[in-house]
Amino acid sequence: MKAEIITIGDEILIGQIIDTNSAWIAARLQEVGITVGRKYSIGDRAEEITEAINTSLSRAEVTIITGGLGPTKDDITKHTLAHIFNSPMVRNEETYQRVERMMAARGIAFNELNQGQALVPECCTVLPNLKGTAPGMWFEHDGHVAIALPGVPYEMEELMTLEVLPRLKEHFALHAVVHRTAITFGMAESMLAQHIESWESALPPHIHLAYLPSPSQLRLRLSIYNCDRDSAEAEIEAQFAKLLPLLGDLFVGWDGETLQSAVAKKLIARGETLAAAESCTGGALSAKFTAMSGASEYFWGGVVSYDNSVKENVLGVSRENLDTYGAVSEQVARQMAEGVRRVCGTTYGVATTGIAGPTGGTPDKPVGTVWMAVATPTATYAQVLCHGKIRSVNIERAAAAAINMLRLHIPSEY
Amino acid sequence: MKAEIITIGDEILIGQIIDTNSAWIAARLQEVGITVGRKYSIGDRAEEITEAINTSLSRAEVTIITGGLGPTKDDITKHTLAHIFNSPMVRNEETYQRVERMMAARGIAFNELNQGQALVPECCTVLPNLKGTAPGMWFEHDGHVAIALPGVPYEMEELMTLEVLPRLKEHFALHAVVHRTAITFGMAESMLAQHIESWESALPPHIHLAYLPSPSQLRLRLSIYNCDRDSAEAEIEAQFAKLLPLLGDLFVGWDGETLQSAVAKKLIARGETLAAAESCTGGALSAKFTAMSGASEYFWGGVVSYDNSVKENVLGVSRENLDTYGAVSEQVARQMAEGVRRVCGTTYGVATTGIAGPTGGTPDKPVGTVWMAVATPTATYAQVLCHGKIRSVNIERAAAAAINMLRLHIPSEY
Repeated sequence: MKAEIITIGDEILIGQIIDTNSAWIAARLQEVGITVGRKYSIGDRAEEITEAINTSLSRAEVTIITGGLGPTKDDITKHTLAHIFNSPMVRNEETYQRVERMMAARGIAFNELNQGQALVPECCTVLPNLKGTAPGMWFEHDGHVAIALPGVPYEMEELMTLEVLPRLKEHFALHAVVHRTAITFGMAESMLAQHIESWESALPPHIHLAYLPSPSQLRLRLSIYNCDRDSAEAEIEAQFAKLLPLLGDLFVGWDGETLQSAVAKKLIARGETLAAAESCTGGALSAKFTAMSGASEYFWGGVVSYDNSVKENVLGVSRENLDTYGAVSEQVARQMAEGVRRVCGTTYGVATTGIAGPTGGTPDKPVGTVWMAVATPTATYAQVLCHGKIRSVNIERAAAAAINMLRLHIPSEY
Repeated sequence: MKAEIITIGDEILIGQIIDTNSAWIAARLQEVGITVGRKYSIGDRAEEITEAINTSLSRAEVTIITGGLGPTKDDITKHTLAHIFNSPMVRNEETYQRVERMMAARGIAFNELNQGQALVPECCTVLPNLKGTAPGMWFEHDGHVAIALPGVPYEMEELMTLEVLPRLKEHFALHAVVHRTAITFGMAESMLAQHIESWESALPPHIHLAYLPSPSQLRLRLSIYNCDRDSAEAEIEAQFAKLLPLLGDLFVGWDGETLQSAVAKKLIARGETLAAAESCTGGALSAKFTAMSGASEYFWGGVVSYDNSVKENVLGVSRENLDTYGAVSEQVARQMAEGVRRVCGTTYGVATTGIAGPTGGTPDKPVGTVWMAVATPTATYAQVLCHGKIRSVNIERAAAAAINMLRLHIPSEY
């Protein structure tokens, strides 16, 4: 079972937006045993859309198309689909009424552009979009399926979840693909590869290993294609059981776990709380926790102490330490972690202070130098890392490394 | 002049990573007048890589390939390229020595895997990668060019900037493509389309308009393809000169401007400072400012007051207001903005307090309700918005709307 994903929009080809939809769709298709063979992005031009859809229909059982369904003139996907499937445009009454209600609730005029959102090719099955104006559309052609979805991520996600995936499961008999991913943090790809070389070499040929690095984690994924799901899951589990002792503290969790979700689990289980004092990460560390629903249970907040006056006046960092050692120092990191723990009244305090770059480095403290500290009820720990020269990467890595310190310093016992 | 972009990696097709590289590459190619006709993502399999590269070489003058150049066994792009161009693998001495020095500096063993990074197809021109171990490679074939780059974004970006773009400019005689984008904030796509309908209808047919919506802005882009650059720029400027009076306060700035960079410019010009008190945005608003280099000049920090105790104890929000009106209220938003301005000693304070969801809503205050406030030296302003049900979107929109309030309340006079 193969699928292809086609994302439509000039804004993708000129690089003004990043396509996050196709990764999300691919992950969901994998889960139901459909392998994405290829993804492509094309512009808002009828010939290109027609060619891409026809090619995909000839090659893959499922074609998922996103984008180009907006109300404005540059969006032509729907009319091109009507032409490909030789079907007239008709008004879908249910969509018309839903869009009318939606506009009324938002106090937006139900104008001609919005009314046009209810026009669909007659041959399609309409998939109701509860979060936006453009409905999804399901086409069948010579045993192949083509599905058009809006490009707005949360609209597309809801349509995939409520409509597309259940229909695909029903429509096709699917082969299983089993993936499992171990999340690690703390060792670079080439070192880890050498560290686990004997385990990797002993993997049977039908089990595929992939290293998936990113600034905040290194994922190790095992995959078995075209398999019996139960025995494949057992085989993969047995291989990971041999790997975990080699990973030790590097192992963060399984698929979908992050450093911050691992910390959150520990804090919730222990009934403890956290506050953050951020200088170089400037809010990014706190945002990682508050992005998770339910964060208020254990994350009480903190202080973004970007300017030294805020370190001094709000967190109680001593002027002497700032003058003697500088804002990027072990002493200041420790006082920040202890200060935010005291000011917010939490079990733990975590702190970052560093030089994110690209300017501000010195010979002693080059760009990328970050001091981190964790204050616990019994002790304060500090650590320094030197990352690279890229501001965004330094912020991301510093936040990840500080959260990892927390992960290692919060006890596992409940 | 057409280019195609091929991103290689199973991790893209199974949706474990989001491809940000191709958007970045596409934007840079546009700037030098190369139009990206198509982008595709394929897996780490030799047949698919071969087919995609051959197809692209037959259709486009430039093929840019990213990914699959890592040191581990699942990365096969380089060997596949050697096979396509029928060229033996040879050791590139310069790369070998640079990787050796790089490993030594990081204290990582220079093992066989890293040594393998210096092997390249003999027929290519090596493009030195100063930030990583995998070099870029430039191939020429029947007047077409194929370029392979590592998938790590900052390595790819440096190679594009220092090596690929200058070489492409030299190698080809390029037609110009002119784009200009106006950033707007504050009106939905369909309403804005109606608001500027007469202007849009009067555009000559060779000037293309696109609406590019995202949670934090709506961009309006005008494009002219295959043109004389100077006259096209003048034409586009003349059209925008007619549009700006229609946009009024909705206009934030030109290509690349963001709400936060517009605020930053005003603060720098006025020599003023800012602090943020964040509840529902939980650090995301501060992170938008601190992501910009030079933020320390005007952004002094702030307080993430996620828990009510932090609102009370650190920001001085009154217990009475919290009890009477609730944490999500005009009164609390005002006290947060005034409190953070006072505690941090800045010219302005901005605050957010809301229900990000997906849980926590009530009939009076449904999920998505966000109170925002801006405290200035002379007055405090508050505003409420009700966004949707998606946590990540609510956080993004609340941060954007609060920064937009700042933009409108900081005077433009210097």
